[in-house]
Amino acid sequence: MVRQHAGPRDRSEIVTTSTGTNGRHTVAGPGSAGPVGYSLPLSPTGESAMLTPPPWHFSGEVVMVDYRVDPDAARRFLPPGLEPGADPGAAAAVFATWQWCSQDGAELTDPGRCQFGEFLILLSCEFEGRPMARCPYAWVDQAVPMMRGWVQGMPKQFGVIHQSRPVTVGKAGSRLAPGGRFDGALSVHGRRVVEASVTVDRSTDQPPALHDVPLAHTLVFPEWVPSGGGPRPRLVASEVSDVEFSPIWTGSGDLTFFDGLGDDFGALAPLEVGSGHVFSYGETLHGGRLLSDYSVSERHQP
Amino acid sequence: MVRQHAGPRDRSEIVTTSTGTNGRHTVAGPGSAGPVGYSLPLSPTGESAMLTPPPWHFSGEVVMVDYRVDPDAARRFLPPGLEPGADPGAAAAVFATWQWCSQDGAELTDPGRCQFGEFLILLSCEFEGRPMARCPYAWVDQAVPMMRGWVQGMPKQFGVIHQSRPVTVGKAGSRLAPGGRFDGALSVHGRRVVEASVTVDRSTDQPPALHDVPLAHTLVFPEWVPSGGGPRPRLVASEVSDVEFSPIWTGSGDLTFFDGLGDDFGALAPLEVGSGHVFSYGETLHGGRLLSDYSVSERHQP
Amino acid sequence: MVRQHAGPRDRSEIVTTSTGTNGRHTVAGPGSAGPVGYSLPLSPTGESAMLTPPPWHFSGEVVMVDYRVDPDAARRFLPPGLEPGADPGAAAAVFATWQWCSQDGAELTDPGRCQFGEFLILLSCEFEGRPMARCPYAWVDQAVPMMRGWVQGMPKQFGVIHQSRPVTVGKAGSRLAPGGRFDGALSVHGRRVVEASVTVDRSTDQPPALHDVPLAHTLVFPEWVPSGGGPRPRLVASEVSDVEFSPIWTGSGDLTFFDGLGDDFGALAPLEVGSGHVFSYGETLHGGRLLSDYSVSERHQP
Amino acid sequence: MVRQHAGPRDRSEIVTTSTGTNGRHTVAGPGSAGPVGYSLPLSPTGESAMLTPPPWHFSGEVVMVDYRVDPDAARRFLPPGLEPGADPGAAAAVFATWQWCSQDGAELTDPGRCQFGEFLILLSCEFEGRPMARCPYAWVDQAVPMMRGWVQGMPKQFGVIHQSRPVTVGKAGSRLAPGGRFDGALSVHGRRVVEASVTVDRSTDQPPALHDVPLAHTLVFPEWVPSGGGPRPRLVASEVSDVEFSPIWTGSGDLTFFDGLGDDFGALAPLEVGSGHVFSYGETLHGGRLLSDYSVSERHQP
Repeated sequence: MVRQHAGPRDRSEIVTTSTGTNGRHTVAGPGSAGPVGYSLPLSPTGESAMLTPPPWHFSGEVVMVDYRVDPDAARRFLPPGLEPGADPGAAAAVFATWQWCSQDGAELTDPGRCQFGEFLILLSCEFEGRPMARCPYAWVDQAVPMMRGWVQGMPKQFGVIHQSRPVTVGKAGSRLAPGGRFDGALSVHGRRVVEASVTVDRSTDQPPALHDVPLAHTLVFPEWVPSGGGPRPRLVASEVSDVEFSPIWTGSGDLTFFDGLGDDFGALAPLEVGSGHVFSYGETLHGGRLLSDYSVSERHQP
Repeated sequence: MVRQHAGPRDRSEIVTTSTGTNGRHTVAGPGSAGPVGYSLPLSPTGESAMLTPPPWHFSGEVVMVDYRVDPDAARRFLPPGLEPGADPGAAAAVFATWQWCSQDGAELTDPGRCQFGEFLILLSCEFEGRPMARCPYAWVDQAVPMMRGWVQGMPKQFGVIHQSRPVTVGKAGSRLAPGGRFDGALSVHGRRVVEASVTVDRSTDQPPALHDVPLAHTLVFPEWVPSGGGPRPRLVASEVSDVEFSPIWTGSGDLTFFDGLGDDFGALAPLEVGSGHVFSYGETLHGGRLLSDYSVSERHQP
Repeated sequence: MVRQHAGPRDRSEIVTTSTGTNGRHTVAGPGSAGPVGYSLPLSPTGESAMLTPPPWHFSGEVVMVDYRVDPDAARRFLPPGLEPGADPGAAAAVFATWQWCSQDGAELTDPGRCQFGEFLILLSCEFEGRPMARCPYAWVDQAVPMMRGWVQGMPKQFGVIHQSRPVTVGKAGSRLAPGGRFDGALSVHGRRVVEASVTVDRSTDQPPALHDVPLAHTLVFPEWVPSGGGPRPRLVASEVSDVEFSPIWTGSGDLTFFDGLGDDFGALAPLEVGSGHVFSYGETLHGGRLLSDYSVSERHQP
Repeated sequence: MVRQHAGPRDRSEIVTTSTGTNGRHTVAGPGSAGPVGYSLPLSPTGESAMLTPPPWHFSGEVVMVDYRVDPDAARRFLPPGLEPGADPGAAAAVFATWQWCSQDGAELTDPGRCQFGEFLILLSCEFEGRPMARCPYAWVDQAVPMMRGWVQGMPKQFGVIHQSRPVTVGKAGSRLAPGGRFDGALSVHGRRVVEASVTVDRSTDQPPALHDVPLAHTLVFPEWVPSGGGPRPRLVASEVSDVEFSPIWTGSGDLTFFDGLGDDFGALAPLEVGSGHVFSYGETLHGGRLLSDYSVSERHQP
């Protein structure tokens, strides 16, 4: 069904989830709990918050390359609680062009706010035997998705991301048809660091393995006021619904990492490049579920 | 047919069209004609030229609103040789997301180079009785299309352009279906100056009138070394081939101009807003054809 | 003394402050505590962290306008624990062009990383009788300072910021001399929202009042995994050292807020504009000190 | 004297230099000569022109490295009329942070419009025995200076440019004092292509040789409507006045070219790096003077 763009956002929803008010009214005066908001900046009504509360809807165009990484290098990126699983060294490089909106869809009428590009790496892993993916690195080109990534434990940084757009008319691009080629490129701090290319040859209904499992993130944020034990990282899984895939165009992939992001990133460079995939993808992100609290469990080890 | 991405560009083609060499070989030495190129920067082989020679292919996604402007204001933007024609005051505001490439398609593998956004205004007019469109203002968000606009006489400036992308999965955007809403926004020098919105209700094969006529531009460039009579503007029409339209989704339009670009621009603000259209469009641009040399004709008037 | 740019950063310092390792070695293997870092992204050595740990050094050029805001509007932005103080309604709008670096100065050799622009608003307030300033809104034009703001409880968002540079030669700008004019402009989401201008007439050693008191921020971050009582905001003061002011050029100020950021922001628009100041400023930021935990104290109220 | 910011620009000046009107009034009506302007876009009053007519004032901060290039490579970038001169292979890499304004200074109150960054290469050469410099490549980060470069025959393209700012307070940067280090970096299309660094040790009044000679540019623009003989490149020198240097801080330089801009650019990579210089520079640019018309002279060769 076509997305309906509702009227002005119902702010009561935001106030309900705001910090420090516990649902009380926000009119200033004696006894006021002060400014509120789902996130900074706090303000009298909460309307100034940079982030809106979930759920957030996403509709994206994906160019993705499966590849293999040194299994030992991948393991060094897995926090306690995550294991390499059945296919150690399986990885993927994912370019995506997104639109997003909050529950009420308000952002959709301002295309400068609801669009962003993303590049991320996924590593195959398991949590208690369940296949998952770990995202060691991600970059986006807008501030709101970057900050929202950190709320989820997703390590989004700022990069410049470009990705081919399939065309349906004219000669300036490939169609989604056998032989069509689609490229992605990531630059960070003015240096090209990743290039990917997919040449598709067939369409399938089978989603790429690493795009069809939950993501396990580490929820942690630097401590400004030092506490006794340091920050307390927690392993969480993102809870999504309404996952939707278009037909998946699949073919050969190409993937190059360039120098410039350091040895840790470089250790995840491709040893072997597999298939490439081009598809559209939608989901709704609702929040996080705790998988484990690994610093606590570490401390309790005998 | 799917676009084939050929190998490295055949530079001999560029050298052939380069300046000042008349096809001679470009090896330096006594009698060398110096650096060459289709445009600045000139270099020994011509490979450094910022612009490639036409033809250029374009594939774009268009969000367009028909509107009416004060016919007297429109007339003041028409150079000698162009007349208001049968429908004075007919105008359009056009947002487009483009991919482009040169004849050999080389730019398509670098999505950061082959993509740009554009906003332009079109005014209905006639040249010797033939319906045409005049583009008094245009903005793009990349340097190469801006400079290439001036080569054609198209007054492209630099702006920040955003435009909704239709989606096929998920809830973060409208589908190309009845009720779908698509927005465009232009900011110039940090100020929002135009917003447009189209809500589509039906599909048609009839291209919007002002997107289906040739553009008449004024070829003129500031004189750095003063000549006797000042620069000599020439009226030209762009020569295009391989025009291709997708089905056109049509419905109601909305269009707002904001202050900030001066009175001349403001005089073209909408008096009445008509239909809106969303479609894909392809063309190949080959060069320009002289319509008239109006400063010369002016001077020859008795 | 001139800043010395030392060799490669001593990573042991970062590891010491990293999360989840408690100083243990980070070589992967059985029993490894997993990837580490001062912030996301975590990685085997910690070198991938987007943020470096404090202290951070800052050297900036400031264009600042004192103004008066509706005291009731200002009070609605003060969290529990902060009072309007002796001069309710005193406010300032501050543009700054910064360079920053970590303790080892590594960022200074990459000018694309160590520079950013900032605009912020300051409101006069008191904590337990001590004069402080509250920053209800701030914008920066780089990702690292934005994220680092949230680590401190400073509500930095992303904006486009421009500010005049004093000149010492040529005619394209003002000198720091009587009659010199210096402007600042903030755009957010493609809309101009603040413009300021200062025309200086004299030099003084007296720092502007609101630039010479500690900032009191609210440390709070959205909860991804819901806890019982919601996020627990804490009032903190930034701890700085090595504060250094250049001579302060002072004169008349001008300040305009434009629509577009909502009613909460609009409530802080200037009722009256005071002096303007242009100066250079340096400081070192070490961390945060807890002022109070207001959600807890709220809950404990009878 | 401090720059005075006058009131609204006197448009009559622009109309005087506008195209195609020869000073006639621009009121529309029968016999009107149509829209006018110093450059595109033409409009009824000329106020919409992207470029203002010269003179243009410039005040800049320069970080410059002298270096030596293969003399044969340099010669291949010299057009007919220019000779390598007394010091073939002398070259310089110049980073600059500029403010600029038109004669009336109007742009200075909008710091987003009057500022830009630039990187350019200079090659030593001579015209009829007079020492000059040839600029084979230049990049800027704003559209107006890019287009204005082409008006002058200066091959400005679009790049991302960063350059250290000397500081006077705080620890986040070097002071202009012995041991101070200042860096510049150029990225083009998301790839780092040049890095420079200067460590100063002394101050002098002697301007760097290649920053103290006229620039010889080739005035040429692609032909949209083919003429018989192709475009007619002309060798011009820029005419400047009010040249002003600050004291020049001089020391050792460092300069690195990276791959990514092709072999022609690569041929100008440093064989040897000389001194580095940091200084402020002002000038006023008035127009161009014809040195020779080399395609014509070529044609007349026997």
